[in-house]
Amino acid sequence: MQKVYINLAERSYYIHIAPGLLARLGEHLAALDVGRRVLLVTNPTVRRLHGGPAEASLTAAGFAVVPAEIPDGEEYKSLASAEKLYDLAYGRGLDRRCPVVALGGGVTGDLAGFVAATYLRGVPFIQVPTTLLAQVDSSVGGKVAVNHPRGKNIIGAFYQPRLVLADPDVLKTLDAREISAGLAEVIKYGVIADAGFLAWLEENLERLLNLEPAALAHAVAVSCHIKAQVVQDDETEQGRRAILNFGHTAGHAVEALTGYTAWRHGEAVAMGMAAACRLAVQLGRLEEAAAARVKKLLVRAGLPVDVPAGLSPAEMLASMRHDKKVIAGRLTFVLPTAIGRVEILRDVPEEAVRGMLEQRR
Amino acid sequence: MQKVYINLAERSYYIHIAPGLLARLGEHLAALDVGRRVLLVTNPTVRRLHGGPAEASLTAAGFAVVPAEIPDGEEYKSLASAEKLYDLAYGRGLDRRCPVVALGGGVTGDLAGFVAATYLRGVPFIQVPTTLLAQVDSSVGGKVAVNHPRGKNIIGAFYQPRLVLADPDVLKTLDAREISAGLAEVIKYGVIADAGFLAWLEENLERLLNLEPAALAHAVAVSCHIKAQVVQDDETEQGRRAILNFGHTAGHAVEALTGYTAWRHGEAVAMGMAAACRLAVQLGRLEEAAAARVKKLLVRAGLPVDVPAGLSPAEMLASMRHDKKVIAGRLTFVLPTAIGRVEILRDVPEEAVRGMLEQRR
Repeated sequence: MQKVYINLAERSYYIHIAPGLLARLGEHLAALDVGRRVLLVTNPTVRRLHGGPAEASLTAAGFAVVPAEIPDGEEYKSLASAEKLYDLAYGRGLDRRCPVVALGGGVTGDLAGFVAATYLRGVPFIQVPTTLLAQVDSSVGGKVAVNHPRGKNIIGAFYQPRLVLADPDVLKTLDAREISAGLAEVIKYGVIADAGFLAWLEENLERLLNLEPAALAHAVAVSCHIKAQVVQDDETEQGRRAILNFGHTAGHAVEALTGYTAWRHGEAVAMGMAAACRLAVQLGRLEEAAAARVKKLLVRAGLPVDVPAGLSPAEMLASMRHDKKVIAGRLTFVLPTAIGRVEILRDVPEEAVRGMLEQRR
Repeated sequence: MQKVYINLAERSYYIHIAPGLLARLGEHLAALDVGRRVLLVTNPTVRRLHGGPAEASLTAAGFAVVPAEIPDGEEYKSLASAEKLYDLAYGRGLDRRCPVVALGGGVTGDLAGFVAATYLRGVPFIQVPTTLLAQVDSSVGGKVAVNHPRGKNIIGAFYQPRLVLADPDVLKTLDAREISAGLAEVIKYGVIADAGFLAWLEENLERLLNLEPAALAHAVAVSCHIKAQVVQDDETEQGRRAILNFGHTAGHAVEALTGYTAWRHGEAVAMGMAAACRLAVQLGRLEEAAAARVKKLLVRAGLPVDVPAGLSPAEMLASMRHDKKVIAGRLTFVLPTAIGRVEILRDVPEEAVRGMLEQRR
C-alpha cells in the first residue's frame, strides 16, 4: 500500500492508496478516535456500485451507519443539499465526535466536506473518493464548498480530512470520459511541477487508460504528493498554491458559461491548459514545442483542447473577470515557462487573452 | 486606549477598547491590508443609532460601503439570512480580500462571522460589537454560527476576526435589561477564573450599571483577557475551553424550550449559573457561602436566578441531553469549586440534576 503524508501541523493526515481499500473502510475508521455514528454521504449510483462493501465494513467494525443519498450533479452541490444533511445528522443524534464520510466524486466530497466543516462547528471528515479526479484532486487541499446559484464554490471553507482512502479498483466502474477527465488533472501536475512525471505519463498513458491498478496507484500517489508539496506551503491559498489553478481560469469560464453540465470539470481544465499554453507561447514565455507536447498528451488522453466554438471571446473574458480568484478585476493566469515549471502572470493584457481565445478558430 | 492581544499564531489579532472607537472604524480598517469594498452587516436599530459615524468613517478612509441590514432576533440568524448576504456580497463584486464588518450584537456578529468564514472560503472579518454581551463574549473565541430550525448554533465554524473594536460609548443606547444580560457573562468570568475580578465587580457594580465608560472598559478588557487565556490554549474547544460553558448547560435548555425569545442569552446563563452553583453545593463540591455570593451579585445586576416555573425538570433534562456539547448523552456540567475556580464534571447523576432543577420551588 502506498501512503502520502499531508503535513499540516495538527491538521496532518494520510492518504492511503491501494486496491481493495473500500472494503477496509470500517477498520481504518475504527483506528481513529471518533464517535460510533457515521453519516455516509453518497449518491444513488455510487451507493449501488460501492455502498455494499463500504457499509458492511463499517457495520462489522461496530459503527452505526446513517446513509445519506444526494443525487449526482453540480446543481445538488447546494446549500439546500447541505441543509438536508444537517437535518439528518442532527435528527439522528450525531455529536461532534461522529464522522462524516464522503463516498463518491468531487460533488459528494465537496458537499460532505462543507457539512463536516460546519456541522457543530466541525466534525471529523473522511474521504473515500470514487473518481480519478477526486482521488488526485479533492484528496489534498482541504477545499470544501457548495455552489451559489450564480457561481461555483462561492460558499465554502478550508477544512482538512482526517483520512483519505483511494482505491484504484473502484475506478473500474467509471466510463472512459470520466477517466479522461481525471487524467486532465494528472497531466496538470506533470506540467506545473514535474517534467519526469510528465515523461512517465507520455510513456504509460495506455496503461492508465486501461485502468491497470499499479499504474493508477502510481499516478494517484505522485499527483497527491505534488499537490501536497504545494498545499503544505500555502494552506489557505494566499500565494504559491495558485499554481494549482493552471488551466482553471479559462476552464472555470467554460464551465460557468455552459451551466456546469455540458463539460466535465477535467475537460474544461484541459481546454484551459491548452489555452494557457497558447497564451504563454504568444507572449514569448514558452517554447512552441513544449506547448505541442502538452496538447498532444491531452488529445491522447481523450480530452478536448479547444474552447467550444459557441462561446465568444467577449463572454469568456467577462466570465473570467468575475472568477472568485480575480482580485480587483485583474486578469491573472498561471502559465508554463517549460514542462514542470509555471509562473503566475498578473495583469495579462486583454488583447493577449482575446488572441488566445480566438486562435483556435 | 486598552488593547487585548489574542495570541493564536497566524490568526492572532487585537481587541481595541476605548470610547469613540466607532468613529475611527475606517482608519483602523485602512491599517489592515484588505480590499476596498466592505460588507457592513448590521440591523435596522443599530444602523439608525450607530450606522452614521461608522459609514462616514469608512467612506472617509476610502472604502466603498455595501450596507446589509438583517432584522434583529435569533430567528434571523439563519442560513436564509446568510444566503442574502452571500447574494449581496457576490452581486456587489466583493472579492476574497474584501472585509465583512459586523456592527451589532451577538446575532449580527455570529451571522456576519459565519458568512465571512464561508464566503469565497473565508474573507477578512472585523467585529464592532454594540452590546456588552457581544463585547465581552463574541469578541474572543472565533465562534461563528447560524441556527438550525431545531437547535441554536448547529451550523458554524471557528473563524477568527482580524480586528475587534469595542467602544463603551455605544453601550449608552442599550436598555437596562440588555446591560444586565451582558453583566451575566462578565460575572461568569470572575466566577470561573478570577476571584479578584469578582471582588472588583461586587465593589463596582453600580458604576457598571450607570454605564461609566472607564468602569465598562475595565470590565470588558478583563473579561476578554480571561476568555483569551482560555481560548488560546484550546482554540477549537477540545478540552479546557469547556469551562466557558459555566451556566450554559441549563441556560441553553431554557433558551431552547422558550424558543429563544422570552429570555436574553445572558439571562438564561444567569439562571444556569445559579443552578450550577446549587448543584455544586448539593454535590458537596462548593461551599454554600460562595454560591450565595454569586447569586447575590446576579440579583444585584438585575438578573433572574431561577429556572422559569413553567419548565418542568423532565423537559429541561431532555433538552440538556440533546445539547450539541453533550457527548453520547452524558450529562456534563461546569461547576465552581470556589470563587475563581471551576471543574468539569461528567456523568452527573440524573437525580442530582433533577434536584438542582426542583430546588427552586
